[in-house]
Amino acid sequence: MTQPFRIGIAGLGTVGGAVVKLLGDNGVLIADRAGRPIEIAAVSARSKSKKRGVNISAYPWVSNPAALAAYPGLDAVVELIGGDDGPALALVSQSLKAGRSVVTANKALLAHKGYELAAAAEKSGAALMYEAAVAGGIPIIKTLREGLAGNRVDVVYGILNGTCNYILTTMRETGRAFKDVLKEAQEKGYAEADPSFDIDGVDAAHKLCILSALAFGLKPDLKAMKIEGIRTITAQDIAYAQEFGYRIKLLGTSRCIKKKIFQSVEPCLVPAGSSIGSVEGVFNAVHVDGDFAGAGLSVGRGAGGGPTASAVVADIIDLARGHKINPFGIPAARLKKASFAGTDEVSSRFYMRLEVVDKPGVLADVSAVMRDHNLSIEAVMQRGRDPGKPVSIVLTTHTVRQSDMDKAAAVLAKLKTVIEKPCRMRIEQF
Amino acid sequence: MTQPFRIGIAGLGTVGGAVVKLLGDNGVLIADRAGRPIEIAAVSARSKSKKRGVNISAYPWVSNPAALAAYPGLDAVVELIGGDDGPALALVSQSLKAGRSVVTANKALLAHKGYELAAAAEKSGAALMYEAAVAGGIPIIKTLREGLAGNRVDVVYGILNGTCNYILTTMRETGRAFKDVLKEAQEKGYAEADPSFDIDGVDAAHKLCILSALAFGLKPDLKAMKIEGIRTITAQDIAYAQEFGYRIKLLGTSRCIKKKIFQSVEPCLVPAGSSIGSVEGVFNAVHVDGDFAGAGLSVGRGAGGGPTASAVVADIIDLARGHKINPFGIPAARLKKASFAGTDEVSSRFYMRLEVVDKPGVLADVSAVMRDHNLSIEAVMQRGRDPGKPVSIVLTTHTVRQSDMDKAAAVLAKLKTVIEKPCRMRIEQF
Repeated sequence: MTQPFRIGIAGLGTVGGAVVKLLGDNGVLIADRAGRPIEIAAVSARSKSKKRGVNISAYPWVSNPAALAAYPGLDAVVELIGGDDGPALALVSQSLKAGRSVVTANKALLAHKGYELAAAAEKSGAALMYEAAVAGGIPIIKTLREGLAGNRVDVVYGILNGTCNYILTTMRETGRAFKDVLKEAQEKGYAEADPSFDIDGVDAAHKLCILSALAFGLKPDLKAMKIEGIRTITAQDIAYAQEFGYRIKLLGTSRCIKKKIFQSVEPCLVPAGSSIGSVEGVFNAVHVDGDFAGAGLSVGRGAGGGPTASAVVADIIDLARGHKINPFGIPAARLKKASFAGTDEVSSRFYMRLEVVDKPGVLADVSAVMRDHNLSIEAVMQRGRDPGKPVSIVLTTHTVRQSDMDKAAAVLAKLKTVIEKPCRMRIEQF
Repeated sequence: MTQPFRIGIAGLGTVGGAVVKLLGDNGVLIADRAGRPIEIAAVSARSKSKKRGVNISAYPWVSNPAALAAYPGLDAVVELIGGDDGPALALVSQSLKAGRSVVTANKALLAHKGYELAAAAEKSGAALMYEAAVAGGIPIIKTLREGLAGNRVDVVYGILNGTCNYILTTMRETGRAFKDVLKEAQEKGYAEADPSFDIDGVDAAHKLCILSALAFGLKPDLKAMKIEGIRTITAQDIAYAQEFGYRIKLLGTSRCIKKKIFQSVEPCLVPAGSSIGSVEGVFNAVHVDGDFAGAGLSVGRGAGGGPTASAVVADIIDLARGHKINPFGIPAARLKKASFAGTDEVSSRFYMRLEVVDKPGVLADVSAVMRDHNLSIEAVMQRGRDPGKPVSIVLTTHTVRQSDMDKAAAVLAKLKTVIEKPCRMRIEQF
């Protein structure tokens, strides 16, 4: 057998530990598939003495992770520190500049600095691999960059955050409120102590930004993305959606509309019986529409040590085999700056819930506002809870312009009889 | 830009035509992704003058497809003739022996001669690529061979034949009989004039054989595979399955049980609300369980010109990029001869339908046979149709040994009161 492929691993948390375990458990099989053994030649993390599930005492310890960029004899570094600056950025950019290949799980870094890093990699001839950055258990980077390379992609969308999907699934199954379920998810370890990164959609936005760059040949660009999380979803919304035949999912969507890009992360309604509607719990799913391949959906575990380590090791094996590809599929110099579609260029069906005062004429007022904004109502449902208490008006529209919907919602919010900010969500029929 | 990547295409039917169209339509984008343009430098097919959707007059014509193996200046040949012998075998084996890389969509060839061809490719240094051989729109070969390369796979199963899935879906939706729906599928072009290859499970068996070889590092081996098609599925079976909460799918399953392999293509019951249960119509789906990645499912179009061409072109782009991999992921010399599990080593839940004479004591007789073979019944339903007519006894079992089930079925078939061969199917809970 030829020389081992020697890696340095920076970051030994859940994912780093799982990578060490995976390389150990499946070492023989991996050497067969990679054509050579994978050797951990150096490790680095914040604490050397921290108790871990794996024994790292056999590996040379490097206290400053960025030093792995110049550590002698490595074929690649594996960055599992996280964050879009600090030691992660230092390690990745120094490695790439020095011509050393990088495998990373860092979605924030790719979303914020992906273009510059890809350019640096191509300049020095290093590889930049990041399968683990999006939906670990699903090889979606490889699918987009290689498996569907013959296709013009029209749309990519998905359930990109397992924490949100777990919360929404549990809310639906139990009828409980968001706060309750979040608390339970935190206790079970499915949500972080500070959950905002997940539940406000930031994590999904980073991932969508990467998918969008790959699918459409764009410089990763977070700026023009609408990002809305799931904090405001109520148990009623979920129940009403179900009555209309839908489930609520936090969807990241990137669609090409007349050469412009529409990008958003927001809760949407999807048909309950559809393939994506049946993706529940912590599972992720990514849907891609190619002009020749047609529609395809991949479902798998998005986070956690095992699935993320699986993706990291797939990248390592690719490098050990000598596989080399531009980080975003095409040369960085040919990545375009996206031109984003305005809300007047985007159409969709919508769900809207209004909390109104229970008195005569309210539905007439609401209907008039809808009519005045060219919003064609498909179905409407008014339901009182208790006498004297506010009433919910829930409606769905036919396909309408997003900008018209936005304007109508603003007008409705100002009606004296509407007592809460209207809740509205896109309905994605796909 | 560097030299074009020059291919010769043999076979210009639906798939060949779609490959020519795809390379034309998306040529600019493909050149960007492949790092060089793809050039069709020669074509070959049975008839030069046949009317096709694409114009092939610009390409040099070669009348004997096998001559492409030695045609000057080609970087790869694309074999889209089909069949496991004749011109397809001649072209592929002569090309590989000559060190010329091959892209093929030929599942029969891979299933029957995959080991010999892989060995020939590795010996000469040529590539043998066959993404299009299994579930065209789903990059499942790449997913198994590269995306999940770090994992020990425990099971791979899937809906591998779109024609069967279309027929079963339509039978369920309309309550119509198999023969009726098959006839309609033939009229619509979803089934061949001679449909036996699809509906008797042979096509799915070829595909499963390839997946099994990749997942478990085996020499492709069709011999020890149980292959059963969908001809005997009745509208009642589908209706009864639905009452128990299941749908009937033709599943190809390859499972590793204590280092032995269980391989089968047969109709199975899957939960109606599961991800695989909601894969309907002509769609295919492949489920893979990796020890680190966990469960994953990929859904997409399995056949037709567009999806298959997408897979063929992905392979061509991979080759143009210089991507090189052992055909079955590990060196052919290390592929093992599978040791197959006997029916006494395989356990499952089962569905069984018996048509019996409507007279007292029949259920007691049936129950006694089940008991005598250690078969624990989970649910049972007896339903008469018309007085004096036969009665259906439908039951599901807890997890039982396949061999016990087989023996019991043989005994039941001999009971005087049982008037048809018992229909039994595995229930896959996954």
